Amino acid sequence: MSLGPGDAGLLAPLARQALETADVLVGYTGYLDLVDPGLRDGREVIATGMTGEVSRAGAAVEAALLGRRVAVVCSGDAGVYAMAGLLIEVMEARGALERIDFEVVPGIPALTAAAALAGAPLMHDFCAVSLSDLLTDWALIERRLQAAAEADFVVCLYNPRSRRRADHLARALEIIGRSRDPQTPVAVVSRAYRPGQQVTVMPLAEVDPEAVDMQTICIVGNSQTRLAGGWMVTPRGYDSKYRMGG
Amino acid sequence: MSLGPGDAGLLAPLARQALETADVLVGYTGYLDLVDPGLRDGREVIATGMTGEVSRAGAAVEAALLGRRVAVVCSGDAGVYAMAGLLIEVMEARGALERIDFEVVPGIPALTAAAALAGAPLMHDFCAVSLSDLLTDWALIERRLQAAAEADFVVCLYNPRSRRRADHLARALEIIGRSRDPQTPVAVVSRAYRPGQQVTVMPLAEVDPEAVDMQTICIVGNSQTRLAGGWMVTPRGYDSKYRMGG
Repeated sequence: MSLGPGDAGLLAPLARQALETADVLVGYTGYLDLVDPGLRDGREVIATGMTGEVSRAGAAVEAALLGRRVAVVCSGDAGVYAMAGLLIEVMEARGALERIDFEVVPGIPALTAAAALAGAPLMHDFCAVSLSDLLTDWALIERRLQAAAEADFVVCLYNPRSRRRADHLARALEIIGRSRDPQTPVAVVSRAYRPGQQVTVMPLAEVDPEAVDMQTICIVGNSQTRLAGGWMVTPRGYDSKYRMGG
Repeated sequence: MSLGPGDAGLLAPLARQALETADVLVGYTGYLDLVDPGLRDGREVIATGMTGEVSRAGAAVEAALLGRRVAVVCSGDAGVYAMAGLLIEVMEARGALERIDFEVVPGIPALTAAAALAGAPLMHDFCAVSLSDLLTDWALIERRLQAAAEADFVVCLYNPRSRRRADHLARALEIIGRSRDPQTPVAVVSRAYRPGQQVTVMPLAEVDPEAVDMQTICIVGNSQTRLAGGWMVTPRGYDSKYRMGG
């Protein structure tokens, strides 16, 4: 199930219900900390560290096979770079797909939460690229960044920084910058709708990768994206068709 | 503000609050119909037709300038191909950016709602492309489809069908099919979490564009996407790194 960004005001009722009715909550420690203590306390909790996804999924499937009602807690949307797929794969590997009543409860993903705080950067075609090369060849990541930049997609960068590698974001911005103006607005949004939230919009040429951590999403505008007051806007194209204002 | 897919169970509390505290609700008739009558009745409502976005935004800004609290109602996420950007542009054109306390309330976008019903197709890099050429040159749409397909993005198709043009989806699938196996799973999801919901997953070669309408999202898998039981899964890559099941 999906927590959304973390703020209780953005937790959908269906997701809240999944937490309320679960016998067991399974999740990464940092995400379980986002759950309202009133929903978490007095319940069995299986918490694992950041890279414990496979054991976490295994524990969740085992508990479900014992007939328990399990909520696997994900931040953002459980279906975006999160646990939904791994759970299906683990159920399949254990021959459990038919025996578990499985459901993905969607949530507000990190990219639209970040976009809302920056203005309206996702009004036109966009893509999401994770810069983590733990499970993906860096060469494929570069190929996707280049294709997205050349085809003028708005580009949302997930996992812009890892503990192992500090230069991924700098390389990604360099690749995108080959086909985008240095003045293109970039939203750098950390901890959207969580304590410590930070939202800055700056030109592509001025993004400091050193100042970005893993709890950040970067949204690089397309060739039409601009600032209006403090807001980042990617025009949908009404301006060319209608006269606005007046 | 964002309604999410439409089901009250997926309306975030912050979005509900925006509806509850508004003096005026502004929106496309079809989206206002999704609002719980208890939240809608007894309130001033400004409803316009499907292509009335510019006049709708103008009416919303005018009401806000009169000091009224206005909620502009969008389906899915207000920041994804919706009204957030146009509102900022209209406020700017009228010199009203400083005078209106503007906020984008995010919601569950159509692409993750559709993904949740199909399984977990968005576990790896993905993009969204609208096939509507009302405001975008078709040549640019084709360029983006080709780039996304060649770089092996999962591709989410918005507005797959219009009243004016019936062949957009067929052409889009043909372009994607040049660099993707005919057996690639495609999720065709209509009216996600609304009355009349339909979810089907089928091979790329078997999608019938004639059976798809405007209230549908199509998600075309990447080269790794496969079926597990009835679920569509794009593996994140754990399988190559860890032994699963056992």
